[in-house]
Amino acid sequence: MPVSLQLLSQFTLLQPLPREALEPLSTRMNLRQFARRGMVMSKDSPVQELGFLVDGRLQGVDFTVDGRSVGMYFVDPGDYFGELSLVDGQPPSEFVVAAVKSTVAFLDATAARELILGHPALAQAVMVRLAQRVRTVMAQRTLLGLPNPFQRLCVLILQLPQRMVDGVAEIEQPPTHQELAIMINASRETVTRAFQLLFLHKVLVREGNALRLTQPVLLKDIAEGRADPPKA
Amino acid sequence: MPVSLQLLSQFTLLQPLPREALEPLSTRMNLRQFARRGMVMSKDSPVQELGFLVDGRLQGVDFTVDGRSVGMYFVDPGDYFGELSLVDGQPPSEFVVAAVKSTVAFLDATAARELILGHPALAQAVMVRLAQRVRTVMAQRTLLGLPNPFQRLCVLILQLPQRMVDGVAEIEQPPTHQELAIMINASRETVTRAFQLLFLHKVLVREGNALRLTQPVLLKDIAEGRADPPKA
Repeated sequence: MPVSLQLLSQFTLLQPLPREALEPLSTRMNLRQFARRGMVMSKDSPVQELGFLVDGRLQGVDFTVDGRSVGMYFVDPGDYFGELSLVDGQPPSEFVVAAVKSTVAFLDATAARELILGHPALAQAVMVRLAQRVRTVMAQRTLLGLPNPFQRLCVLILQLPQRMVDGVAEIEQPPTHQELAIMINASRETVTRAFQLLFLHKVLVREGNALRLTQPVLLKDIAEGRADPPKA
Repeated sequence: MPVSLQLLSQFTLLQPLPREALEPLSTRMNLRQFARRGMVMSKDSPVQELGFLVDGRLQGVDFTVDGRSVGMYFVDPGDYFGELSLVDGQPPSEFVVAAVKSTVAFLDATAARELILGHPALAQAVMVRLAQRVRTVMAQRTLLGLPNPFQRLCVLILQLPQRMVDGVAEIEQPPTHQELAIMINASRETVTRAFQLLFLHKVLVREGNALRLTQPVLLKDIAEGRADPPKA
């Protein structure tokens, strides 16, 4: 199924492209839908594609040699994934699964490589993205150097994208407890218990789908080991 | 101090360049020496440079919010570092310290950016390097999902570069116990004790500066949780 020009123009990576460059893409891309927990890109797949998320939410995950899942990153609408394999020709470095029902537009590897190498603005955007992925994974890796899961959770909460609402930092649509758990190497139960304590002591307040950081100094002190985690 | 053309031709990244492109570099680079444990590149430094290792060995390290050190990667002679900041303009993502006495040739950021963006072969090489760094850090991050430090050590040993000698895989110049410890979030003592057991049970054999993997199947079984770590 071809992808409309209007849809293509919503993909951040493609925004520097002139209309003439977008038109041939609309027929080379195809749309696929995935149910929640559906496998969008497998590590074992020999097929290389660049994926653009139309709607829904995806998560990049990997598994340890003994089968524990390890969370890597999220993909939100307008964003792309699969660029590692395009660049180095190796199989995907992780699995990409649908966190919720999602629609993805795929571009085959040959077309995607031509596109990126043919437009210096896109090549530079992909380089910056790769550099930022290195930084993100390094931050996660550093986070895991902390022995206490409560502390790891507080560091991770502070790393999530925030916006200020009435002078208080808010995290809109925070990841689920299960998603947070696999990002910090803890059980879902540990994350849920930690949130209960953070809510009880009003370090965090839930407001609809958002989390309000009502005591950011205390949260930072717990994250950096200067304050003990709150007790029941 | 200008850097000789002969030295420049030893840097892998620069090998696709013609002689005319190398000549102006030789006067723009400068050589600096570092004692063991010297700080080669600081996270806090506003100065952005691309570094090339002439001799010695460097380690990229970071620290958790509570001050524990976390190992990232090694730089060997001929290799380069500092590319993340060049690409995204952000401060360095980690500290680079000299693991042994080392000599480094530095190229300032402006010259390095012109060089990389002006030569598509270098731009592509940097993209591939970034992709590989993502993969390496993801593998380390996944490794840390394993609860048992002995198992993490065995996975890491299997990830180190190997070469075959008389039909047996060997790791030349393996990292020190301290270096391995900070890569797997364990104490130096835990790593030393694990090596003692692996030597005692002849899973590994030391041969000069090399480690011989004499029982690779058992090592893999321990790494993947199918066999218990050996006991004293």
